[in-house]
Amino acid sequence: MKDFNLICKDYRLLFDKRLNDFLTEQTALSHYSEDNSKYPYSLYDPLNYIMQGGGKRIRPLMVFFSCEAFGGSVEQSIDAAVAIEILHNFTLVHDDIMDNADTRRGKETIHKKWSVNEAILVGDELIGLSYRSLLRTKTERIGEIVRAFTDGVIEVCEGQALDKEYETADDVTLNDYVIMIRKKTAELLKTSAIIGSIIAGANTEQIETITNYSKFLGLAFQIQDDLLDVVANEQEFGKKIGGDILEKKKTYLYLKSLELSEENIKSTLKDIYKNGTAGQDKIDEIIKIYKSSGAIEFAKIDIQNYTLEANGYLSNILNPSARHRLEKFSEMLLKRNY
Amino acid sequence: MKDFNLICKDYRLLFDKRLNDFLTEQTALSHYSEDNSKYPYSLYDPLNYIMQGGGKRIRPLMVFFSCEAFGGSVEQSIDAAVAIEILHNFTLVHDDIMDNADTRRGKETIHKKWSVNEAILVGDELIGLSYRSLLRTKTERIGEIVRAFTDGVIEVCEGQALDKEYETADDVTLNDYVIMIRKKTAELLKTSAIIGSIIAGANTEQIETITNYSKFLGLAFQIQDDLLDVVANEQEFGKKIGGDILEKKKTYLYLKSLELSEENIKSTLKDIYKNGTAGQDKIDEIIKIYKSSGAIEFAKIDIQNYTLEANGYLSNILNPSARHRLEKFSEMLLKRNY
Repeated sequence: MKDFNLICKDYRLLFDKRLNDFLTEQTALSHYSEDNSKYPYSLYDPLNYIMQGGGKRIRPLMVFFSCEAFGGSVEQSIDAAVAIEILHNFTLVHDDIMDNADTRRGKETIHKKWSVNEAILVGDELIGLSYRSLLRTKTERIGEIVRAFTDGVIEVCEGQALDKEYETADDVTLNDYVIMIRKKTAELLKTSAIIGSIIAGANTEQIETITNYSKFLGLAFQIQDDLLDVVANEQEFGKKIGGDILEKKKTYLYLKSLELSEENIKSTLKDIYKNGTAGQDKIDEIIKIYKSSGAIEFAKIDIQNYTLEANGYLSNILNPSARHRLEKFSEMLLKRNY
Repeated sequence: MKDFNLICKDYRLLFDKRLNDFLTEQTALSHYSEDNSKYPYSLYDPLNYIMQGGGKRIRPLMVFFSCEAFGGSVEQSIDAAVAIEILHNFTLVHDDIMDNADTRRGKETIHKKWSVNEAILVGDELIGLSYRSLLRTKTERIGEIVRAFTDGVIEVCEGQALDKEYETADDVTLNDYVIMIRKKTAELLKTSAIIGSIIAGANTEQIETITNYSKFLGLAFQIQDDLLDVVANEQEFGKKIGGDILEKKKTYLYLKSLELSEENIKSTLKDIYKNGTAGQDKIDEIIKIYKSSGAIEFAKIDIQNYTLEANGYLSNILNPSARHRLEKFSEMLLKRNY
């Protein structure tokens, strides 16, 4: 059996080529003067800039592996994979505005390098382009995949709204948190999995299997992301360490620390988090509490548990090589450090 | 034959009910706590606020009349009409941020009443909801209508990008302007018409007829909009008179005045437009030039000509009552004063 990392490498290469071809074609389409000198440059320059920023291609891989799980192929699902990745980039561009983030994947964010106006419009256009790529999928079940995709768009927006609301709310629970990350993060992995499986011709039961798998994997993924925000290597991570703390995000680590701590630590944590001056000192102090409260250890356990729960559904996938590939995929996410 | 205004009134009532039902349902869906006290309120409160702002429902009427033109019904096309209107509202919310507009339909804009963050996310969610409504349409040609809709999303974004670019560009021609309004304004009317006709089961030739009609009607519509920006009654118009001038929009009136004026007037106009202090004096001075240059008269002629060109295509529509309805629709747009 081919090494899993090599498979991922091959699939990423295929994916990057298709994505690049699509964007080159769409950019050319936007030119409207005879000599090609005129085009919506304020839209397509930043759009190509963000799309060339790379990324881990986790969602496209989810599309591919889900499609293969039920007998489909990469080629059948590649336009949908491009669609999901473009949609994911839309969320990054708009979220970065809202979170006032300076860098993304080690590069300046669009609203910093250009302006908020450009960043808004790039995000909007990315939604349009994502549907355009999705609609190139050759399937008799086009209505179903567009419906799943649209559910993804809506849930992701609602998740982002909750994430922002929680920043200033005092009564956020871990249960609220799980609802938020289910929408904000798990949803798009789920969408990827559902669409991949529909393209392969999956039946209701099969779609349910892959839905459950990807949903729990998505929860693990976001808690991992919260963890990386405080333990990752800044260079590899491509974002500032402690960014969530400065943004007062109600992360797993924050909420779990509150749950685990005595009253005095709890009120110290709440106070620093809410009122502390944004800076390295604040980040260091908070991380110290995350460590001493045991929240970091709990995060690792929950990441593992959600991953195990996800993998539990894979027993319904009968093709052993496809099942194995999804297990390796879970493992890759579990072990990532950026 | 039933009076055209009465038909519009009936259709608007049916439309408003369906739109309202859809939004009520979607808002309820977003509630996630058992007692319904928790929901993404920062998303759904401003979303319902903008959607309750009314509007002329021009695009929904275009969907209905195009559907009827080829034997379809309002009921068949109403979910698509809701989709188009929601999409239209997305463009308003995001454009108002970019244009820094204070009011819309006589009410404070979302980014003023809430903040830019909320306004960005409301726009995004509206795109998602628009697709969700569209996908409820019962048709075997779902791929085609979603494709046409997506073309609309993309073109509208590109049109908005050009509109913003032109604000600071010195070499914008009337030809560039037409390309911009084709994308920014005519496109969504065209999308409405195409989708309405597909739902009715129109063939390629029939779709082409309604495409041409709606495209030219859309050009007339935008020039009319440019004209209303300087001649409308502010209360009825719901926006500030001279808003385009303060935003330094390269409108039909500005570009036509440049084309018609002698060198000295031309450079005065350019100078005031670019460097004049934003305020009533500037607006008054510019409008004076628009009048003296003859641009306002030319605008009226071009609106009429584009409308005639649009109506010319209607001879291909064989059902006399449907054709008559579209002619009345053109006339309504031509005579609107807000």
